[in-house]
Amino acid sequence: MKFVEKLLNACRKNNSLVCVGLDTDIGKIPKSILQQDDPAFFFNQKIIDSTFDLVCAYKPNIAFYEAQGSRGWDALKKTCEYIPKEIPIILDAKRGDIGNTAKMYAKAYFEGLKVDAVTVSPYMGKDAILPFLEYEDKCALILCLTSNDGAKDFQLSIIDGRPLYEIVAEKVLSWNEKKNCGLVVGATYPEQLKRIREIARSLPFLIPGIGAQAGEVESTVRFGTNESGELAIINVSRSILYASSGEDFAPAARNETLRLKETINLYRKK
Amino acid sequence: MKFVEKLLNACRKNNSLVCVGLDTDIGKIPKSILQQDDPAFFFNQKIIDSTFDLVCAYKPNIAFYEAQGSRGWDALKKTCEYIPKEIPIILDAKRGDIGNTAKMYAKAYFEGLKVDAVTVSPYMGKDAILPFLEYEDKCALILCLTSNDGAKDFQLSIIDGRPLYEIVAEKVLSWNEKKNCGLVVGATYPEQLKRIREIARSLPFLIPGIGAQAGEVESTVRFGTNESGELAIINVSRSILYASSGEDFAPAARNETLRLKETINLYRKK
Repeated sequence: MKFVEKLLNACRKNNSLVCVGLDTDIGKIPKSILQQDDPAFFFNQKIIDSTFDLVCAYKPNIAFYEAQGSRGWDALKKTCEYIPKEIPIILDAKRGDIGNTAKMYAKAYFEGLKVDAVTVSPYMGKDAILPFLEYEDKCALILCLTSNDGAKDFQLSIIDGRPLYEIVAEKVLSWNEKKNCGLVVGATYPEQLKRIREIARSLPFLIPGIGAQAGEVESTVRFGTNESGELAIINVSRSILYASSGEDFAPAARNETLRLKETINLYRKK
Repeated sequence: MKFVEKLLNACRKNNSLVCVGLDTDIGKIPKSILQQDDPAFFFNQKIIDSTFDLVCAYKPNIAFYEAQGSRGWDALKKTCEYIPKEIPIILDAKRGDIGNTAKMYAKAYFEGLKVDAVTVSPYMGKDAILPFLEYEDKCALILCLTSNDGAKDFQLSIIDGRPLYEIVAEKVLSWNEKKNCGLVVGATYPEQLKRIREIARSLPFLIPGIGAQAGEVESTVRFGTNESGELAIINVSRSILYASSGEDFAPAARNETLRLKETINLYRKK
């Protein structure tokens, strides 16, 4: 099954565009959990148990696991295995390296961790992304316009009268022969999000920047979805994971996910 | 001690600009090693034992270790611990993420693996790189012009009459307040290497692209070094690691490293 199909199935079944970012920070999870054998995995299990019927995807960011060394890697692998099979897993890794090396990353994530999609950086160009695109049923989500302030440094630069992020979006469209590309576009730049959706009508968009990063929900949904109100994967991490710092973190995460899902659905095209 | 100082010390002691890239591929190391408890670490030990007096740095690329999951992470950690303390370790990771996440990567590599430098991608701008620069005695080597063909896709784009890679080089200079920035510039673009060295006279350059990628040694040395014939870290991976596919891989790696070191030194400014 193609990634987009799996994504649409989960999105329709749960009537949701919400992606929960599993950026599990050992320094932020409830202290009472730290006595568990594998606190990060334990925390993730509880979060998944209380949100799996409300999301269209999960997105662990690998940095939070690498910070724990090989233990972290094991926690990430167990988390990927624990996520219900029908929900796509996007590994947020933002990798980009020469072909020979990119092949190793693709193998590590698509074969080792068995995730459905990986975020990758466009800076090194097409040959750094091709090894990910060899996997026809997986997806490479390529950074286009990111949600952070530093996006201004290079991504907004004008080349032949057009911003770099638009050129990235068009290049990615041209690399999409196997229908397994997508884009990462931050919610914090709504006008640009609208323009990128006009360029790439059929691509899935991973949209970070709602929540802790303060992007607006309404413009994100209106501009980020396609004509059917779909293909936007709206990621929230911290404001769901740490909705409560106490023992009730899992029901608090559920409430926050539900609230977000419903707010998003208010603005979706029918 | 600042990274540049540590680098210069190793470079002068061994009279070498050679960096050995520890891109240890389980599929390429001699079959006889695979019976070892930790074949990747065993292979690296032998390579290090036979080259440590000929190099200015080692550069493991993390992709090759991630491809082996948590075992690979352990092999990488043991390798970093095994490298003699006076030789700088550059972790080739090409990371780039929002501040909150970049901080996790910096912690994983500078505190967990205790490496001296990390390669990072500029696409997300300054705030994605700042967490690495908080570590004053470490170094962030920022991708400027990479050695692969795909570098043409975006890095050579013209912005206000100048190529993107030049703009990256200048931005990095402006971020270098703590004297802990460097650049990654491929050997496969000699004219551009010359131009980038003119812009950033005092920065260390990591230069991949010699060897399997066929960059020229003479132009790399002439254009990549500073006025004292230093600050170029010329990386070779595959043509050293796999100089022989047999039992004699370690002496073969030594011969190839020595040959390369001497060829490079022929062209260095005195």
